Amino acid sequence: MRMYDLIKKKRDGNILTEEEIEFFLKGYVNGEIPDYQAAALLMAIYFKGMTPQETADFTMHMANSGEISDLTSIPGVKVDKHSTGGVGDKTTLIISPIVASTGAKVAKMSGRGLGHTGGTIDKLESIPGLKTNIEREKFLEIVKNIGVSVIGQSGDLDPADKKLYALRDVTATIDSIPLIASSIMSKKIAAGADCILLDVKIGSGAFMKTRPDAINLAKTMVSIGEHVGKKTLALVTNMDVPLGRAVGNSLEVIEACETLRGRGPKDLEALCIELSANMMYLAKLGSISKCRAMAKKAIEDGSALKKLKDMVAAQGGDASILEDYSGFKQAKFKYEVKAEKNGYIKSINTESCGRVAMILGAGRETKDSNIDFSAGIFLNKKVEEQINCGEVLATLYSDDIKKCKSAEKILLNAIKVSDTPTNHTQLIYARVSTEGVEKY
Amino acid sequence: MRMYDLIKKKRDGNILTEEEIEFFLKGYVNGEIPDYQAAALLMAIYFKGMTPQETADFTMHMANSGEISDLTSIPGVKVDKHSTGGVGDKTTLIISPIVASTGAKVAKMSGRGLGHTGGTIDKLESIPGLKTNIEREKFLEIVKNIGVSVIGQSGDLDPADKKLYALRDVTATIDSIPLIASSIMSKKIAAGADCILLDVKIGSGAFMKTRPDAINLAKTMVSIGEHVGKKTLALVTNMDVPLGRAVGNSLEVIEACETLRGRGPKDLEALCIELSANMMYLAKLGSISKCRAMAKKAIEDGSALKKLKDMVAAQGGDASILEDYSGFKQAKFKYEVKAEKNGYIKSINTESCGRVAMILGAGRETKDSNIDFSAGIFLNKKVEEQINCGEVLATLYSDDIKKCKSAEKILLNAIKVSDTPTNHTQLIYARVSTEGVEKY
Repeated sequence: MRMYDLIKKKRDGNILTEEEIEFFLKGYVNGEIPDYQAAALLMAIYFKGMTPQETADFTMHMANSGEISDLTSIPGVKVDKHSTGGVGDKTTLIISPIVASTGAKVAKMSGRGLGHTGGTIDKLESIPGLKTNIEREKFLEIVKNIGVSVIGQSGDLDPADKKLYALRDVTATIDSIPLIASSIMSKKIAAGADCILLDVKIGSGAFMKTRPDAINLAKTMVSIGEHVGKKTLALVTNMDVPLGRAVGNSLEVIEACETLRGRGPKDLEALCIELSANMMYLAKLGSISKCRAMAKKAIEDGSALKKLKDMVAAQGGDASILEDYSGFKQAKFKYEVKAEKNGYIKSINTESCGRVAMILGAGRETKDSNIDFSAGIFLNKKVEEQINCGEVLATLYSDDIKKCKSAEKILLNAIKVSDTPTNHTQLIYARVSTEGVEKY
Repeated sequence: MRMYDLIKKKRDGNILTEEEIEFFLKGYVNGEIPDYQAAALLMAIYFKGMTPQETADFTMHMANSGEISDLTSIPGVKVDKHSTGGVGDKTTLIISPIVASTGAKVAKMSGRGLGHTGGTIDKLESIPGLKTNIEREKFLEIVKNIGVSVIGQSGDLDPADKKLYALRDVTATIDSIPLIASSIMSKKIAAGADCILLDVKIGSGAFMKTRPDAINLAKTMVSIGEHVGKKTLALVTNMDVPLGRAVGNSLEVIEACETLRGRGPKDLEALCIELSANMMYLAKLGSISKCRAMAKKAIEDGSALKKLKDMVAAQGGDASILEDYSGFKQAKFKYEVKAEKNGYIKSINTESCGRVAMILGAGRETKDSNIDFSAGIFLNKKVEEQINCGEVLATLYSDDIKKCKSAEKILLNAIKVSDTPTNHTQLIYARVSTEGVEKY
């Protein structure tokens, strides 16, 4: 087999066999196939796509390029969830304990933030003492005992994806639906859960900008799941505005706790109920409506919050901080951004919000940047809400007043105000399963 | 400027500016842009093409990546010619002296053979004593005095093309018309002539397999010439059968001499008259019909053969050999391949003929292979000719009888015999100029 022939075959729109895909991925990971041939193949895939079978084969051989996490020692159904990323997306902190409190198991590996999107691991690490680099045995033990644990991704997971993603990033071959789908799904498959819920975001803060693209990505991932024997569902949801009101690590942990107390922002709560219900449905805990009711109950009776506290404590964190938020590191400045006119908030550019949070210190510009856990934004006003001139639109948290001032300008530009009330924005667009696309 | 943005721009079907093309080619040649980004761009160009302006810019910046041959010290119009390659294509040896004998100047740099196609430089070097690595001053002096010289390509010519071609060769990005066109034209432009005649071959022995592709390539190259101010014409010609009857270095030199004596194969003579006439036409020596007459006269009155002898002598070769062919190295074996049945030759797979010649020792498998100048094939019978069982179809020349035997099998497979007379094959399909496509 020659790499040249594989490139030409895909370039000419033909279908690669499983053996050819394995030959490429193995050869690329072990360095026998050079970057330039991989880049040419990726660009050919960008243009010619891959069939569902090719995409599934690509995914499985990526997953098999490294360690596959073995969760079989944990009794019960293990459910995983992945979000394609956004700003203010703290759902993992809320839905993992909800789902665990109803009996399914969540043994989750999460990532760190880069650029304008945050990462669950960074958020968790804002809790003093909490560890995310827990040894495998301990991690399995916590999930067995408590039902939930969230740790950082193992370095040995999916090396093919790591190497290919880095190459795609510099060769303009990121935006290919089969390549995005196989990158996400291979990591989820390697993480070992029995079923997978996908949250595919659309909008100004998301990677997918249009509904057809997002639905296409959701379908592709559900199809991969089906091909490889993992029960998979996807929700296609709105990321045109930041989720909830908090953007920044400890601010988001606090907002997650408030949501688990039934005092969270309505959009965040509604999305979390829906995500949790679908995870429980995948774990066969009942019909979707029954699962929704269970999710609501887990918030109302405090069982979900208790699960989060137990997990935090098990991972070495100070769980009392979830009761008394003053234990979090506090930002030196709380800078108020005020409305410059009366009206209704029409839109908030979510990517700009992410960028503002990064400037304030909440995110990483490069992999090696340091994070200030206390930095971030609290959106006192959100889309559709009425504002009066001089009223507080948002509060910026930072240790550096200069950063607040430059962030203020960007944020004011990112918020569009209209004279008339704006239309209601939809939170969840569709649910994609093997049965098809169900509109909300 | 970032290479990533250029790849994305081309991937999305947009047009690269001259500055962007220059940035890529300079960066790639000096090693600042890595192979993998170049490979991604080449594959994007494969799919999205380039406009005539982009292709011209690409060509000029490739040409300018190295030394540009300065022919201004030679009085008169300098005409160059390029063939896209084939088997038995010895036209340069015939048309260069014809054209020089009528007053235009031919200061030509040619290549060596690789794979199934031969190279003019190898053919010339089969003449004892002849040098093709002549110093620049001497080369210009020969052209000034005699009107014609053919030497090997300078190593400093068009380094961008050398590096890019090697990358295209391993990334399945050779078959892109704008990339093929700019590769050919950049070398011709760097070679410094005022006008360029292109011989674009189609058929089983050519790189272009279909007429529309060949005409498209011809149009693209003529358009580049127009954009960069070089008068350019293209003939689209048949390479479904080897040109003439001889394939192999000294065998082809002998056939070229015979053609200059008016005793050559009709197809070869006809094509050489047409190519010469078009080169003279480009040099403004008269109308096409007048130029045709001049070409014929140069053969009839022996002036073209004299030019070739003068050139051979000026380049250090033994010109007497062009009178007495016994001075060429002789192959040990002349092995006759005989017809296995009666009939008419329907087709000869030209690529197979090239491969047979290579096996016999006439060509290079890799860049470092040695050549046997005496090795090759003489086709005693060609397409459309009648044959009787047992009659000699072809004569194989080699120092190794085993090679002859294995070559015989391939050659017999490559020659298809029909019971009925076959249709006449056209030699020249079209002439492409800035005015359009003129069918023959």
